[in-house]
Amino acid sequence: MQTTMEAAEQSKKPSSVESHGNAVEISLQTALSSGNLEAFRKAVVNTLERRLFYKPSFEIYKGVAGLYDLGAPGFLVELNIINFWRKFFVREENMAEVRCASLTPEAVLKASGHVDKFTDPMVNDVITGECHRADHLLKDYCEKKLEKDHSGEEADELKNVLAVLEDLSIEDLGRKIKEYGITAPVTKNPLSDLYPFNLMFQTSIGPAGLIPGYMRPETAQGIFVNFKDYYYDNGKKLPLAVAQTGLVFRNEISPRQGLLRTREFMLAEIEHFVDPDNKSHPKFPDVSKLEILMFPREEQTSGQAAKKLVLGEAVSKGTVNSETLGYFIGRVYLFLTRLGIDKERLRFRQHLANEMAHYAADCWDAEIECSYRWKECVGIADRSAYDLYAHSEKSRVALVAEVKLPEPKEVEKIVITPEKRELGLAFKGDQKKVVEALEAMSEQEAMEMKAALESKGEMEFEVCTLGRNVSIKKNMVSITKKMTKEHVRVFTPSVIEPSFGIGRIMYCLYEHKFTTRPSKAGDEQLNVYRFDPLLAPYKCMVFPLVQNQQFEEAAKFISKELKSFDMSHKIDITGTSIGKRYAKSDEFGAPFAITVDSETSVTIRERDSKDQVRVSLKEAASVVSSVVEGKMTWQDVWASFPHHSSAASDE
Amino acid sequence: MQTTMEAAEQSKKPSSVESHGNAVEISLQTALSSGNLEAFRKAVVNTLERRLFYKPSFEIYKGVAGLYDLGAPGFLVELNIINFWRKFFVREENMAEVRCASLTPEAVLKASGHVDKFTDPMVNDVITGECHRADHLLKDYCEKKLEKDHSGEEADELKNVLAVLEDLSIEDLGRKIKEYGITAPVTKNPLSDLYPFNLMFQTSIGPAGLIPGYMRPETAQGIFVNFKDYYYDNGKKLPLAVAQTGLVFRNEISPRQGLLRTREFMLAEIEHFVDPDNKSHPKFPDVSKLEILMFPREEQTSGQAAKKLVLGEAVSKGTVNSETLGYFIGRVYLFLTRLGIDKERLRFRQHLANEMAHYAADCWDAEIECSYRWKECVGIADRSAYDLYAHSEKSRVALVAEVKLPEPKEVEKIVITPEKRELGLAFKGDQKKVVEALEAMSEQEAMEMKAALESKGEMEFEVCTLGRNVSIKKNMVSITKKMTKEHVRVFTPSVIEPSFGIGRIMYCLYEHKFTTRPSKAGDEQLNVYRFDPLLAPYKCMVFPLVQNQQFEEAAKFISKELKSFDMSHKIDITGTSIGKRYAKSDEFGAPFAITVDSETSVTIRERDSKDQVRVSLKEAASVVSSVVEGKMTWQDVWASFPHHSSAASDE
Repeated sequence: MQTTMEAAEQSKKPSSVESHGNAVEISLQTALSSGNLEAFRKAVVNTLERRLFYKPSFEIYKGVAGLYDLGAPGFLVELNIINFWRKFFVREENMAEVRCASLTPEAVLKASGHVDKFTDPMVNDVITGECHRADHLLKDYCEKKLEKDHSGEEADELKNVLAVLEDLSIEDLGRKIKEYGITAPVTKNPLSDLYPFNLMFQTSIGPAGLIPGYMRPETAQGIFVNFKDYYYDNGKKLPLAVAQTGLVFRNEISPRQGLLRTREFMLAEIEHFVDPDNKSHPKFPDVSKLEILMFPREEQTSGQAAKKLVLGEAVSKGTVNSETLGYFIGRVYLFLTRLGIDKERLRFRQHLANEMAHYAADCWDAEIECSYRWKECVGIADRSAYDLYAHSEKSRVALVAEVKLPEPKEVEKIVITPEKRELGLAFKGDQKKVVEALEAMSEQEAMEMKAALESKGEMEFEVCTLGRNVSIKKNMVSITKKMTKEHVRVFTPSVIEPSFGIGRIMYCLYEHKFTTRPSKAGDEQLNVYRFDPLLAPYKCMVFPLVQNQQFEEAAKFISKELKSFDMSHKIDITGTSIGKRYAKSDEFGAPFAITVDSETSVTIRERDSKDQVRVSLKEAASVVSSVVEGKMTWQDVWASFPHHSSAASDE
Repeated sequence: MQTTMEAAEQSKKPSSVESHGNAVEISLQTALSSGNLEAFRKAVVNTLERRLFYKPSFEIYKGVAGLYDLGAPGFLVELNIINFWRKFFVREENMAEVRCASLTPEAVLKASGHVDKFTDPMVNDVITGECHRADHLLKDYCEKKLEKDHSGEEADELKNVLAVLEDLSIEDLGRKIKEYGITAPVTKNPLSDLYPFNLMFQTSIGPAGLIPGYMRPETAQGIFVNFKDYYYDNGKKLPLAVAQTGLVFRNEISPRQGLLRTREFMLAEIEHFVDPDNKSHPKFPDVSKLEILMFPREEQTSGQAAKKLVLGEAVSKGTVNSETLGYFIGRVYLFLTRLGIDKERLRFRQHLANEMAHYAADCWDAEIECSYRWKECVGIADRSAYDLYAHSEKSRVALVAEVKLPEPKEVEKIVITPEKRELGLAFKGDQKKVVEALEAMSEQEAMEMKAALESKGEMEFEVCTLGRNVSIKKNMVSITKKMTKEHVRVFTPSVIEPSFGIGRIMYCLYEHKFTTRPSKAGDEQLNVYRFDPLLAPYKCMVFPLVQNQQFEEAAKFISKELKSFDMSHKIDITGTSIGKRYAKSDEFGAPFAITVDSETSVTIRERDSKDQVRVSLKEAASVVSSVVEGKMTWQDVWASFPHHSSAASDE
């Protein structure tokens, strides 16, 4: 690589990162402060769709609301996020990453509570039948009213409704809608009574149509039902973390806000199982000094603002209820800011008591500010023992862990002793599953069985793993109460779950990294995605200046070199002006663009400074790769190579 | 790194690859030749389930046939295959990789033919209602009969039925089942008439239940409906390749054969669009010299065996109908063998004329021999223009490409001239979509409209992109016939589609890489997966010899080092004997195992030779990483470091 003193001497320019602050730029930050959010969002979305980051699915058939396709650059951004997530969380902590089925039989989601409780409040237009989400209608009503009149008693009441909106019971929500006389949007028709609508996509598994099933609404349940396997594989030790990425499906009533609320989206979830009596985390000191914008429950209910807290103090004061929860808050903060989320527009908001999902004991959302204001992008929930307990109960398979007691403990205990010989004779190959189900009975169930066997001599008993009832006779099991020495403590583990909405994170990154800058002539605004190389879909664009065989061969050579460095790139042979191609490169957020304008040397242009250097054909790929991988900076490159400037190619 | 001459002198052993051939080993090869397939398969599957490569989903609820979960090692194997696929195909050819929605509205799958034709033949047990796949019953019947009596006229007839089984029409299949008096398995009850069962999982999109939809049965349709966008993005140039990996869903009537026939599975598909008049491929010479086991149509119908063909000759003689199809056959061959598929158990079989899917013009399956005999793992189909044409017709959006003619051509042509002013007045914002639909009319449609407008003055016209009919009046469009000069040729591209069943490839790799070898005492058979480092879920296992803080700290140090080299690994702290841990490491197929038996140095054991060397703690990770990345061989390591032998740890 050329590193002459002369070249170093030439270097006068400051680094690109500082310099671009001088230009007149429009970013989310300025849009938020100027209130010009709609125009900003439109610019972002238009650029994303024009460059095929994403597009509505099935558009030639008019599309379906809430479904989007990722084009090549959008797919690469998603892949970069997921690969970094895998490195940052899964590999760093030696987690087990798995892939469970997404088709899920009803029994599983009945036990988890989703069949009964995974609903949104819905109302219908009584004339057209059109469906609306009740809380959205109430929100829109309040916001519109407040736009017109922002003070007075009525305004205060509306502000209060907005503040507690997610907290309202289904009854209160229905009452408010009636009270305000809210009608259907557009048609203005009256609305039906409010009712809960289940968000899961239902289907039926098997040709006979006898197994009702759903597309999973989260990835977690697949992990919970396999807990026993993962626990054994981990040498029966806690903590134990299992991770999973994959698509989940939610039949949103009225999808809106583009990529923020879709009917099919990518989740990345971690189920970190811990002893409920010990939620400490050995690596908490690694994050305890972070200062993070937090919004605890008390601040929300007392009308205060979010505030910067030192994570260690938030845990020691009990604002965050465990080191493990705190550790993940810190790691999520580091993960998101490393990807490029502005740390001033990232806050961790604690759920209000009534707002939490049916399974959660405590929950903090990583919320990111974008043109739709603060949006939940990562939920970090302490789901307690809810899920494992529910599945143990319904399946009769004990999903428990155990730790050795420091010294044995004398306790009165129900002792269930299955008589394996008798059970074997009666159930043959199914004996093992019957034994397991008998041993998994709760104290109460065991006492009921004892009474039934003593009075009637036999009893019907459901064995979930067999999918049927069996008849248990008196001689098949002995149930007694006795004083016994316990050597281990058996318990249902708690689970701490960081759950990442990859699509939402991706969209917020698009907004945080989007800026416009004036063209050289000053007659138009050009769009630039200032992606970090980690996130950028293409690290480099490659342009042959004109279409001829020599330049195309040279471009192919560079492409081959870039492949050998594992640098994602795109060759653009559209043959438009070089200015237009740089503008396109900036819209893709490519940190570098290589223009092939000779058979032996090329120019490399840096996105943010628009500076160009001339480099030999052979070195080009390795220079780009060194900067992308952080082995050298653009300043080093600027100091080492002759500068290039061309009126035609600038812009 | 230690590389003394002394150490080099010590080296007496041949490389591990040659040496393990000497041991008494049982592999698929021996199992196939000895006919002991069931026992072999059981050993493979038991090992996979014991080590959580995969397991049946939702087992605590009795599970659902055809659904499997990947545990940590299985997930890593899948990830390794997909990452290598991405590198080998997508990056190498600069393809666009995308991710389309998997929820699919009915209109799309109606146009593609899946709603009407994506079926399997089904019969019911008339008493129990149980569903059976008719062709499987016929196959089982023939095979059982043939086991008893392998010669004579009846046997010949049955052999013939087996040969053309996939070729039988639904009527012929029904007739055979009646003729042979086939009854339901197990119950022996009579069977219902045969009827086609659609394999797609149906659901409904949106809260009103008004949009019928399906989970996609292949990823390809999402790409076809977006063709126009990809074509524009590619500078309106062909060939154009778009790739996609993702889950697809098929409601199999009776899933069997474990991972080979599941209801939810990972596909990796490439849609390579070409000009139907030019299916040449510039890189075909790269693969034309490959000698590949091929099974052309003629050989199958005339009862001959598959034979080795030079790919270039197969294309030049017309056995394979285009260079592009031939190129992908060659690339698929290189891909599968690089992963570890035995090239003697890989063949490319051409589909028989009646066997092809409803969309295919020609198709070659990469079939891999396993304990279930030859199974299709990759389909390489020339789908011709079927899909693009079908979607153009149904959606009224022209999915076409164009090339400039060498010189303009005089042709009589229908000229459709939408009157944009009139259409704008009538349809406002929808004008553009109406114009596009009018311009996309076929010649016949245009002439019908011309006649209707002339006689009635207006006509109902379906605009798919709007999802409704509009009324076209006489003044809105002019339709004329005139002689015109054409400068471009407009055509519907053909698509060549290599479609990879990742789960099937994975399962076949498990079988091809599985061997057993006797324990040192000779009293048991130990299982070994001889995975190439590229495929191995863990490149290395790390064992602290005993549980103490010093050894655990040293293990953590090695783990951190391995992470910095991006080497997937697993620390085993179960504390069983070192022999048992090596046996476990071999069952995971880890090429190396590091045992921490001191604070300053460790042993590294190579899986296939069972040889061990002693290496300093600091060097351990870099030695493993160098061999995994191919920078040095195990022979180099063996020559450079002191050898270690321990009676206790050898096994």
